[in-house]
Amino acid sequence: MSGIELSPIGHVRSRNTLNTPDVELQASTSEVVIDERFADGLMGLEKNELITVVFYFDKAYGYSLVLHPRGDMSRPITGVFNTRSQFRPNPIGVTVVRLKSVEGNRLVVEGLDAIDGTPVLDIKPHALTFDEGIRTDDPRKDRTYKTP
Amino acid sequence: MSGIELSPIGHVRSRNTLNTPDVELQASTSEVVIDERFADGLMGLEKNELITVVFYFDKAYGYSLVLHPRGDMSRPITGVFNTRSQFRPNPIGVTVVRLKSVEGNRLVVEGLDAIDGTPVLDIKPHALTFDEGIRTDDPRKDRTYKTP
Repeated sequence: MSGIELSPIGHVRSRNTLNTPDVELQASTSEVVIDERFADGLMGLEKNELITVVFYFDKAYGYSLVLHPRGDMSRPITGVFNTRSQFRPNPIGVTVVRLKSVEGNRLVVEGLDAIDGTPVLDIKPHALTFDEGIRTDDPRKDRTYKTP
Repeated sequence: MSGIELSPIGHVRSRNTLNTPDVELQASTSEVVIDERFADGLMGLEKNELITVVFYFDKAYGYSLVLHPRGDMSRPITGVFNTRSQFRPNPIGVTVVRLKSVEGNRLVVEGLDAIDGTPVLDIKPHALTFDEGIRTDDPRKDRTYKTP
């Protein structure tokens, strides 16, 4: 088990805090500011309605393998890999967000559940085959998204 | 920009190689073998039809910020963050796969585009709000998946 070392490609700029309710997070607008040295890697991204943001929960220390989701004792105990808890062996967050605009090295996005200053590890275009388990021979692969 | 250190929670067991065509990858069955010390974290995962596998492209060295997708010169050049290329600043793969069964610490999955021996960093339950940019106030959140 060798260690894997990663470095942020940018950071989140957001008004979201650890106390922002989920429904507000999903409607919230944030910025993902990519370091200038990686900015060329954003070429063509603007045509995507949805992108995947991979980030690092840098405020999450420690974890339990089993937990009550959200610390709510009324919810039955379950495994950490069956939750989206930030407290996990590798505290990586993966969220699909709506890409509103690309302004140079700044991505304006809606629905990012990450707080201000969160290190960003990767950006990927959303792809039905990768993100929804839909095969290329499934007609749903041609489904298009409309922003509600 | 401080470094981030992660350790695998398990590994992929698969017949897929770097030369397996995409359409075969998507239909292929693989195993994700979670280290025994993390196995308790799988509790409850079996109820999911789709799970997100976060893995590390350990065979990917180096990257270009702009590239012809899949090295195909007939495809216009684009930014690395607008592709799913394994050659990226942080070589992390994120793929939603179909969970066929959980047998102790082994997950049998369909559609994982990772080769044998690939280190696995995280497993998450698929959630429409996180993985498809669908808000909790959108009726599509209650859409269910049917395996085609």
